[in-house]
Amino acid sequence: MSISALQNARYAYKPKLPACLNSPVNEIAVEMGEPTEAVADRNELKEIFAQCYGKPLVTFIKGKNDKIGRELKVGVILSGGQAPGGHNVIAGLFDGLKKGNAASILYGFKGGPSGLIDNKAIILTDDIIDKYRNTGGFDIIGSGRTKIETPQQFASSLETAKKLGLDAIVIIGGDDSNTNAALLAEYFLTKGSKIQVIGCPKTIDGDLKNEYIETSFGFDTACKTYSELIGNICRDTNSAKKYWHFIKLMGRAASHIALECALQCRPNICLVSEEIEAKGYSLETIVELICASVVKRAGNSENFGVVLIPEGLVEFIPEIKKLISELNDAIAADEKNFASISSFLDQITWLSRRISQPSYSLLYTLPPDIAQQFLMDRDPHGNVQVSRIETEKLLVSMVEKKLQGLKDINLYKGSFSGLTHFFGYEGRCAFPSNFDADYCYSLGFSAFLLIASGLTGYLSSVRNLTAPAEQWIAGGIPLTMMMNMEQRHGSKKPVIKKALIDLDGKPFKAFKAAREEWAEKTCFLYPGAIQYFGPEEVCDQTTITLKMERGK
Amino acid sequence: MSISALQNARYAYKPKLPACLNSPVNEIAVEMGEPTEAVADRNELKEIFAQCYGKPLVTFIKGKNDKIGRELKVGVILSGGQAPGGHNVIAGLFDGLKKGNAASILYGFKGGPSGLIDNKAIILTDDIIDKYRNTGGFDIIGSGRTKIETPQQFASSLETAKKLGLDAIVIIGGDDSNTNAALLAEYFLTKGSKIQVIGCPKTIDGDLKNEYIETSFGFDTACKTYSELIGNICRDTNSAKKYWHFIKLMGRAASHIALECALQCRPNICLVSEEIEAKGYSLETIVELICASVVKRAGNSENFGVVLIPEGLVEFIPEIKKLISELNDAIAADEKNFASISSFLDQITWLSRRISQPSYSLLYTLPPDIAQQFLMDRDPHGNVQVSRIETEKLLVSMVEKKLQGLKDINLYKGSFSGLTHFFGYEGRCAFPSNFDADYCYSLGFSAFLLIASGLTGYLSSVRNLTAPAEQWIAGGIPLTMMMNMEQRHGSKKPVIKKALIDLDGKPFKAFKAAREEWAEKTCFLYPGAIQYFGPEEVCDQTTITLKMERGK
Repeated sequence: MSISALQNARYAYKPKLPACLNSPVNEIAVEMGEPTEAVADRNELKEIFAQCYGKPLVTFIKGKNDKIGRELKVGVILSGGQAPGGHNVIAGLFDGLKKGNAASILYGFKGGPSGLIDNKAIILTDDIIDKYRNTGGFDIIGSGRTKIETPQQFASSLETAKKLGLDAIVIIGGDDSNTNAALLAEYFLTKGSKIQVIGCPKTIDGDLKNEYIETSFGFDTACKTYSELIGNICRDTNSAKKYWHFIKLMGRAASHIALECALQCRPNICLVSEEIEAKGYSLETIVELICASVVKRAGNSENFGVVLIPEGLVEFIPEIKKLISELNDAIAADEKNFASISSFLDQITWLSRRISQPSYSLLYTLPPDIAQQFLMDRDPHGNVQVSRIETEKLLVSMVEKKLQGLKDINLYKGSFSGLTHFFGYEGRCAFPSNFDADYCYSLGFSAFLLIASGLTGYLSSVRNLTAPAEQWIAGGIPLTMMMNMEQRHGSKKPVIKKALIDLDGKPFKAFKAAREEWAEKTCFLYPGAIQYFGPEEVCDQTTITLKMERGK
Repeated sequence: MSISALQNARYAYKPKLPACLNSPVNEIAVEMGEPTEAVADRNELKEIFAQCYGKPLVTFIKGKNDKIGRELKVGVILSGGQAPGGHNVIAGLFDGLKKGNAASILYGFKGGPSGLIDNKAIILTDDIIDKYRNTGGFDIIGSGRTKIETPQQFASSLETAKKLGLDAIVIIGGDDSNTNAALLAEYFLTKGSKIQVIGCPKTIDGDLKNEYIETSFGFDTACKTYSELIGNICRDTNSAKKYWHFIKLMGRAASHIALECALQCRPNICLVSEEIEAKGYSLETIVELICASVVKRAGNSENFGVVLIPEGLVEFIPEIKKLISELNDAIAADEKNFASISSFLDQITWLSRRISQPSYSLLYTLPPDIAQQFLMDRDPHGNVQVSRIETEKLLVSMVEKKLQGLKDINLYKGSFSGLTHFFGYEGRCAFPSNFDADYCYSLGFSAFLLIASGLTGYLSSVRNLTAPAEQWIAGGIPLTMMMNMEQRHGSKKPVIKKALIDLDGKPFKAFKAAREEWAEKTCFLYPGAIQYFGPEEVCDQTTITLKMERGK
């Protein structure tokens, strides 16, 4: 296997663990807290999770532990989109298992949850693990988006686990995958099986966090990678002084990534979907906001700038949200008929009698190539794939038009040239930052300890993350504790609440306090590429979001 | 000034110099070689450069030098597109000047060559320089694309230089800017002025190289930045296993960047414009080449991959080259009329009687949004802006169509989902790699020595670049030596020959030998982010292209 020089050098990195987890494993004891309650809908959740509901919080502390040395068989699954550090979760879990008992076995299920359903597993050996330590990607076993939903899928999962003689399954995933982990834990108990299920909080989007999860892994590395690129573009436009760069950033519904990158790079504008929804801003208002900055900067002879746009933006703009919902309904109601219409103009005509007048007008006034994106590429649930809509191009074209209008009435004398970018895939598989490498390894190790302690329905948890790693606190959070009931595809389902940006939170407030200056002046910061080997202040800092949230 | 942690840490970096340049400046002597000749068109060039033609190659060696301590006034210009390391050229020049005589002054002309024409200069002080050491960007004084072309512009340039009392001007730029430097040097001499002009070889595109210039600065850092992103995407697609990523890369006409990134990341396909032109491949052939890889990989159940596309590709595909040339002519011939047509369909109709039948058919069969890009956004010379044509999207849509055809006749059973990217602005202003930081600083220092030695019409030169920096050889190359005559905008002009990829050169041959395997198998390498502080094999390696060309 040919590998890059950096990959080779990163093999030598020893992830840092919380002090307690560095003890011999039979000196790590489990401290149980009081029974817990769900964040809402307690009665319904108690019914659904009759076995798992209400377990206590768990913390690992120094102390005698005799149970920990059992021989174990564990299966691990990577679920959903990639996030830097997934390989280190597996490495931490593997090392923990082998420390507990050298005969323990770790299976990797291939291609996500479907690997469990279809029993596609490999035994992860030292040789394999060592090739993936401190690397990005989920390629060690692959990932997938299959959900374990149907009774048949639950039954097959149990069957696989029994066949392999598993003691436990670890699911590394986002909010949906961890909800799935909770349901699987409950299902196994209901079926009289002792197979445990443990989750790990993964997502670059940063929206899997709450009182007990300070951050999901991957958010740190992904934001640093995007900030490298945004900073480079800021520097480029501050040198060439002639382009406005409109940069869309992954992150699904939540704007955490955009906000973190804004705090790292100080662009002229950063749109925050959560604020736009709260204030009910129309598309026109957003365009006016951007134009205000362009006009002000043109007044300072700075005909250049950078605008950050969260991926999910369009769904938070009331009239577009309405349009999307009407399109989804209209097309779903007569899918075959719609699919048979090949020309865009005919599609528009077909829709004219099936969506409301305002939505039709909006669709009609959008640039045709953007309007087409609302009509194609629907996901398996029949929904528009929001990430495929080129919001960044839409905004450039609307800003151009608006500026021309302002020029015509002498309110703007600058020049405007817009360029667009979309960053997402560039950051999901970067080599994990030292923070993510340490955090993930600790999460994996902690997952082992939860298993060895006989627990199920827990999320592996590492907290106090803005302190040095030795002061981190490892433990487990009962999955039901983070749940409530939400409407999904027509029925109420138990889910872990997604964390959108808190408009009263410190990161957003800090941004809000600074953004007027950023919009007018050139305040860019240039974070540069993630560093793994240099001075601590360069290599070992986590996100500004996390620091602010933790009051640092 | 708020700065990032990395920027602060990079201030402390001490660029490495060739051993000889580390001596006290009065111990650096000038060794003159034999008189030189241009690469071609010698008689014409002798006439144009009556004063500057045929000067000897210059090398700096250890030896006594009394002239070097003069007090000097020098102006420096950043010309054209950004390239990482420009600030270090200026820092090296500044430090050299001050070492030579603390009273020497360095002016920075603002916004490129127009700063010289319009006398917009600032005095560069220690305070200013120190803020830009080892940073990316050209923001210290800005850059611009104005060429010094008209008699008035030449006269104004001389006037500014005289007003400031300059001894010399340093132009940091690409092939065009250095041709301009040669013309300015000649002009000054013709006008009886002793003001010297020295060039520095800048361009991320890597096409300013020849027997005497091993590489242009910025190529190293830019390629490493793009390779970081490409590698991350390779890892992502090897994890998700469901997307084909089509990645267009900057580099203008030359494919050096694409080829270097291919050698660093081993994607499934890398198109090389120079080869495509040499072989006369049609668009259809290129699509077939890509499909062959998609089909083969689908046969191995690998429905994913990465394709690299050089920015200039479309101009090397015979039928598109013809289309572009016909469009340029047709539109130029009746620009006003064409500009008055607002609808795309009417534009097409208007063109139908003005371009050839094959070109018209081609335009007509292109996806409409791509076809439109051929008709808009013309540059000041009336040419299509090739970088704005979304070749990556064009290829995805053609590959999709072709695969559907193959599927219909049972020659392909896979699934294909294409995603597109364009990387360029992300890499032009990255913090320079250690290599570029050292190389640029040495180029700047060497430029000072050329000035102090009373030379004009030279390009600052640092060679033997694959050896450790102390073994580098610094000197100067007479600019006329690298020139020939070429047709530009209707007349023959002296120019430095652009270096496209040599299809018999080692980098291309190495790629060619490996690419069949890469097209079928998954051979990705993941270079990761540029590192500045780590182990030598990670931080201090230059490009594979340069190593191969130098036989390493």
